[in-house]
Amino acid sequence: MTRYKLVVEYDGGDFVGWQRQNNGPSIQQELEQAVHGFCGETVVVQGAGRTDAGVHALGQVAHIDIEKPTTADIVRDAINAHLRPHPIAVLTAVEAPEDFHARFSAVERAYEYRIANRRPPPTLDAGRAWHVNQPLDASAMHEAAQELVGKHDFTSFRASMCQANSPVKTLSSLVVTREGEEIVLRVRAPSFLHHQVRNIAGTLKLVGEGKWRARDVAKALAAKDRAAAGPTAPPEGLYLVEVVYPPITA
Amino acid sequence: MTRYKLVVEYDGGDFVGWQRQNNGPSIQQELEQAVHGFCGETVVVQGAGRTDAGVHALGQVAHIDIEKPTTADIVRDAINAHLRPHPIAVLTAVEAPEDFHARFSAVERAYEYRIANRRPPPTLDAGRAWHVNQPLDASAMHEAAQELVGKHDFTSFRASMCQANSPVKTLSSLVVTREGEEIVLRVRAPSFLHHQVRNIAGTLKLVGEGKWRARDVAKALAAKDRAAAGPTAPPEGLYLVEVVYPPITA
Repeated sequence: MTRYKLVVEYDGGDFVGWQRQNNGPSIQQELEQAVHGFCGETVVVQGAGRTDAGVHALGQVAHIDIEKPTTADIVRDAINAHLRPHPIAVLTAVEAPEDFHARFSAVERAYEYRIANRRPPPTLDAGRAWHVNQPLDASAMHEAAQELVGKHDFTSFRASMCQANSPVKTLSSLVVTREGEEIVLRVRAPSFLHHQVRNIAGTLKLVGEGKWRARDVAKALAAKDRAAAGPTAPPEGLYLVEVVYPPITA
Repeated sequence: MTRYKLVVEYDGGDFVGWQRQNNGPSIQQELEQAVHGFCGETVVVQGAGRTDAGVHALGQVAHIDIEKPTTADIVRDAINAHLRPHPIAVLTAVEAPEDFHARFSAVERAYEYRIANRRPPPTLDAGRAWHVNQPLDASAMHEAAQELVGKHDFTSFRASMCQANSPVKTLSSLVVTREGEEIVLRVRAPSFLHHQVRNIAGTLKLVGEGKWRARDVAKALAAKDRAAAGPTAPPEGLYLVEVVYPPITA
């Protein structure tokens, strides 16, 4: 048996999310079926982050255990062949130590949230960015975002169905920039609460519109009450871009 | 009656192309229906370039004549409202002189051709780039591309159904660059032959793979024979990015 670490990219638009569910196709299920198609083995694909319906990934990480003697390059290519025509691809596969765990070994996750900030609706970016047609002030959003960096009780930014033991999380960084017509939020943390990034995006949008100031974001955080922060931004703007692990030592 | 110049963006994936056809929905037809929905007028939307099925636009230009007294901003917003949910958007609308013609007044067109050059299949870029999985040498492609810049008989790069009077065209510039996993061809000319950019992309791919050299591209051009050049690259990598007009003088 060999454990493989997979880096996975997907367009989440047509899926119920990462995790297997009864109400439609999931990324996890498509990957498990592709592994079965390749080697006939029934595996559980363990992912680093359970992305929601409509959320995309440029660098989700998963691990699988395979009995069949093979190589990492064959694992990558064979899974990709069996994934067609779904918009899911294994970017890299490498052999991993047997104690490597995609979720529990991860030390940092990075997400991006993209806002298409223009008056006309998106076309090529439909389903890949949140369309906000009033002009947003990215500098004000960035300044207010700094209120959230560091270790805080993020109850105000936590989905009611969140299963985490504690609402205390530590944001390593949160950077908001304008790139042409697009506003991009880049956020890194060891781990996140359910909907945390989307709730932050929905709140910072209020700042971008001029309805809120940085001190309102600080007050919302201090309130420890979901109703005190802004609305949940839609899933289509969210991308899991990277999962970081400690260097593998022999 | 007022003439409006429209800059139009679209995802060409689900359309038979720019031009009205009997075998499916076209960009032109969707725009004409949206104008009719807005003001009740039956107009012909004149486009600068007839993009093929599957070809995208970031900056197609069209003009329309409208009797109804209105403003350019209302024209833009109303057409966009009536275009929903199609992935077509009017980016800008401005009043134009009555002798402005989207096609005949244009002095330069710019296209981009995008190649997703990596082993795994594209996911978020599916339908938006040509997937080529063997590594391409962008520098060699750029060097060979310079054989095509300038005024030449482009018969070798012309589709058999091309309706242009002459095969002689002048490429102002043709630049090939690598941007991460993507190879981008950027090409500008006063006008193009049918399939000219896709035939150039298919030929330069042979150079990128090392099968052809710059002198083979020069020989293919000199042959004035479509069979002498490379295959036609698929439509999904092609974007009409800009149409240039002379400055409007009063």
